[in-house]
Amino acid sequence: MSIAAFRADLGDVPVEDHPRIVQQRSRDHYWYSPVLKAKLDHVSAEIVVSPRTQDEVKRVLAAAYKHKVAVTPRGAGTGNYGQAMPLAGGAMLNLMNLDRVVRIEKDRVRAEAGTVLEKLDNETRAAVGGELRFHPSTYRMASLGGFIAGGSGGVGSIRWGGLRNLGSILSVKIITCEEGPRALELTGEDVLKVAHAYGTNGIIVEAEMPLAPAYDWVDIMVGFDDFITACRFAETVASQESLLLKELSPCAAPIAQEYFNRHKSYVRDGQSVVLIMAAPVAVEPVLIYLAHYGGEVLYRSDEASEEELRRLPPIYELAWNHTTLRALKVDPTITYLQTRYPTLKHVEKIVSLLGDELPMHIEMTRQDGEVTFAGLPLVRYTSEERLEEIVRIHEDNECLVFNPHRYTLEEGGMKRTDKAQLAFKKEADPTGLLNPGKMVAWDDPDYDFNAGRAWLFQGLEPYAL
Amino acid sequence: MSIAAFRADLGDVPVEDHPRIVQQRSRDHYWYSPVLKAKLDHVSAEIVVSPRTQDEVKRVLAAAYKHKVAVTPRGAGTGNYGQAMPLAGGAMLNLMNLDRVVRIEKDRVRAEAGTVLEKLDNETRAAVGGELRFHPSTYRMASLGGFIAGGSGGVGSIRWGGLRNLGSILSVKIITCEEGPRALELTGEDVLKVAHAYGTNGIIVEAEMPLAPAYDWVDIMVGFDDFITACRFAETVASQESLLLKELSPCAAPIAQEYFNRHKSYVRDGQSVVLIMAAPVAVEPVLIYLAHYGGEVLYRSDEASEEELRRLPPIYELAWNHTTLRALKVDPTITYLQTRYPTLKHVEKIVSLLGDELPMHIEMTRQDGEVTFAGLPLVRYTSEERLEEIVRIHEDNECLVFNPHRYTLEEGGMKRTDKAQLAFKKEADPTGLLNPGKMVAWDDPDYDFNAGRAWLFQGLEPYAL
Ligand SMILES: Cc1cc2nc3c(=O)[nH]c(=O)nc-3n(C[C@H](O)[C@H](O)[C@H](O)COP(=O)(O)OP(=O)(O)OC[C@H]3O[C@@H](n4cnc5c(N)ncnc54)[C@H](O)[C@@H]3O)c2cc1C
Ligand SMILES: Cc1cc2nc3c(=O)[nH]c(=O)nc-3n(C[C@H](O)[C@H](O)[C@H](O)COP(=O)(O)OP(=O)(O)OC[C@H]3O[C@@H](n4cnc5c(N)ncnc54)[C@H](O)[C@@H]3O)c2cc1C
Repeated sequence: MSIAAFRADLGDVPVEDHPRIVQQRSRDHYWYSPVLKAKLDHVSAEIVVSPRTQDEVKRVLAAAYKHKVAVTPRGAGTGNYGQAMPLAGGAMLNLMNLDRVVRIEKDRVRAEAGTVLEKLDNETRAAVGGELRFHPSTYRMASLGGFIAGGSGGVGSIRWGGLRNLGSILSVKIITCEEGPRALELTGEDVLKVAHAYGTNGIIVEAEMPLAPAYDWVDIMVGFDDFITACRFAETVASQESLLLKELSPCAAPIAQEYFNRHKSYVRDGQSVVLIMAAPVAVEPVLIYLAHYGGEVLYRSDEASEEELRRLPPIYELAWNHTTLRALKVDPTITYLQTRYPTLKHVEKIVSLLGDELPMHIEMTRQDGEVTFAGLPLVRYTSEERLEEIVRIHEDNECLVFNPHRYTLEEGGMKRTDKAQLAFKKEADPTGLLNPGKMVAWDDPDYDFNAGRAWLFQGLEPYAL
Repeated sequence: MSIAAFRADLGDVPVEDHPRIVQQRSRDHYWYSPVLKAKLDHVSAEIVVSPRTQDEVKRVLAAAYKHKVAVTPRGAGTGNYGQAMPLAGGAMLNLMNLDRVVRIEKDRVRAEAGTVLEKLDNETRAAVGGELRFHPSTYRMASLGGFIAGGSGGVGSIRWGGLRNLGSILSVKIITCEEGPRALELTGEDVLKVAHAYGTNGIIVEAEMPLAPAYDWVDIMVGFDDFITACRFAETVASQESLLLKELSPCAAPIAQEYFNRHKSYVRDGQSVVLIMAAPVAVEPVLIYLAHYGGEVLYRSDEASEEELRRLPPIYELAWNHTTLRALKVDPTITYLQTRYPTLKHVEKIVSLLGDELPMHIEMTRQDGEVTFAGLPLVRYTSEERLEEIVRIHEDNECLVFNPHRYTLEEGGMKRTDKAQLAFKKEADPTGLLNPGKMVAWDDPDYDFNAGRAWLFQGLEPYAL
């Protein structure tokens, strides 16, 4: 590979090769994991390329193919499994300049990959009163392409499931990395090939997403003396199809008291909280259930002062991986896990076994027709061995772990790869230049696709007869 | 009671006392049930009163109170448990003239009780692009008040649950039956007192309902050679939160062939069908699942000719109790049950036990956080004893039956009454004039509220700690 020759072929596509800046742009949120931090800290690309149009993306990929330069796509770099870390050096492909909103219709939107999600919602809200069904808590930074390639769900998944579900992404346009890069439009099941594939099988330049109706969501934080009661309340409320919610997240004490800097004054000692975003029509019934379960309203945005509204971050920026982020900012030794608890009993069991070593954080979601306790528990990290033990304790108690301390698609249990996907990568990236090292099935010809385990993105196979 | 004196007090409120017309207006769809038909065939009111304003409703109720005249409210009379049959004679209170749409907001609508549901949707669609979350399949006839007082859910319950869920009705305004009738506005939990109470505890004059976004729903009918595969497909599709559906109903062969007169030419011999209403964004993914399960598209409205669109009724008029209605029109000996099958295995068991005596009809719904097989199986009726036996066979196999061959709230398992509701009836109808004979708890002072059984409308109690 010759970066110089590659660069020479780029014409006037903007590039950056100042080593410090390049290194900085070669980082995502891999440092969420002490394990990944140790493994990936040295990683850096050699150049950052920032195409402004889809044609420029093609030009970059043609040059990369010609000069055998590894290409790692990057949106806002908020991925937290090291997905965007350029293991093989080469070029970072910064997509954030591709940020045109292509078309807004009543029930869907088409936009370029670099569009920031919040900006996208602002445009669709103004145009048709619609918004994305769900977004990561990094809403104000993350890109559409980065979310599709590296995310899974988030704020809104309580109602709409996740990216893994067929129908959550209507269409994706990718550019292949070949001698003559092609644009491919993927729809239907084919979309699942690039969803959460870390950009290993094509550069996403555009995507079409369904819109949900936009509401003036009300942020509510409620408190309970007991975490399990908080979860019971959350489960009941999540189970009512009549209650239109966008976010519902129980966080055990002392998470709010220790890490929610700007909200902690609302929380009493020992209180566990539930973070809620409710449509205006749902607020009253949610509060009725709250009273039934003996909970207490700590904060609600529809009754907040101007000053509070200015001062406080939105509730969703306490939730999902922002819970971890806020904890990390206060206590850099903290890390986290991604889990799934089949029932509340399982949550109870893990809480009783691990106590304050694992301050529990649950995201209530709907998955495959069921209300699910998706866990993002904080972990007071001591060693990699102990972290593995905590994973084992989960697994021994029938709780799933999607290990966020792995940077490949397969090892974390994030995405089930299969023959069809491998074949697709061969077509879209025949020489394996796209984000090398992230797909085990590509690097290991003996990889066993049927390695029995739970996958977050499992494709449609399990539903076939 | 003196009907003449009552009538004299009504001023110019329109009345009708021609016995044939009164008898005709004293009937609902009780004849769905051969059991109810035998029991209620003789029932008739003596007069029909048709107030045009809420003040006139007050005047009618004051006169009824003064002259001790029983009052049975009536919307379109499409209830099919004999809920609106005037057991004690007296007056039918026809609410259909109260049909003003009071207020349309972005996420809710307030209208008078006699508003026909389809008309309501037409107005909210035009004004704010919203529609009722769900409606009975009698959409084109049924009234808002009759739906709240006598219905439970329907087209849309696959996404939004039912009327029994807190938050499905935002507010109800009732008029009490007292010396000086009062208007009471019920919100929050209090709404559950009048939901599905058959008008026994107040006359609904207005209600406020949440709106869902309106879509150009696509009617689809698909076919399978095997009914259980059809159900499996339906369960998978229902379980995908990403698939925005309004209706999903598997009907076993030969239901479509024998009873869906205008659709039967699309169906091959032996095929079981699934009736679907899908949002445009959901059509493609639904068809992908269809292919996975080996099903076949028989009809889709988005590809139908003008002539087909004119000729065919909407898909929802094949579903819910319209399935029964269509069967009854062809074969008057047919009746039905209302059931709930905990899992597909239970459906399979009942189908294997009862075969063609019970042509299976399932409505996929979401209830309390779960995808549910709500059954409305047809029954080839032979005798009341055999019908009871079929109920027992269900119960012996852990399948719930909400018996639609009962006209009281409690006996059918439709609504759990409790002390609070009884107390409310004492307040709103102290002398028991409203729809007498429909609330066992009122007539039987020894009624055991805790009679252990499953209730469709169970109130909030089960969720309390
Ligand atoms: C505080 C915090 C909170 C978070 N909350 C959530 C959450 O709620 N839900 C959730 O799912 N995730 C969450 N994440 C993870 C991450 O933010 C999201 O996945 C986000 O959508 C990533 O977007 P990005 O633009 O930052 O992508 P990046 O981090 O830049 O990239 C993510 C992956 O996609 C690839 N990629 C980027 N752009 C393209 C493209 N155009 N074509 C092909 N591949 C591409 C990259 O190579 C990388 O593998 C969170 C992370 C943090 C740090
Ligand atoms: C073909 C068919 C299909 C059906 N499908 C469904 C379905 O999908 N889902 C469903 O839930 N039901 C269904 N039903 C039952 C029924 O149609 C619905 O419940 C419908 O909403 C009743 O409305 P209505 O105006 O006809 O009420 P009515 O039949 O006139 O009255 C229903 C009950 O409410 C009382 N009532 C009426 N108006 C008032 C008022 N203003 N204040 C107080 N009490 C009042 C009556 O006394 C009676 O007890 C169906 C029935 C038929 C015949």
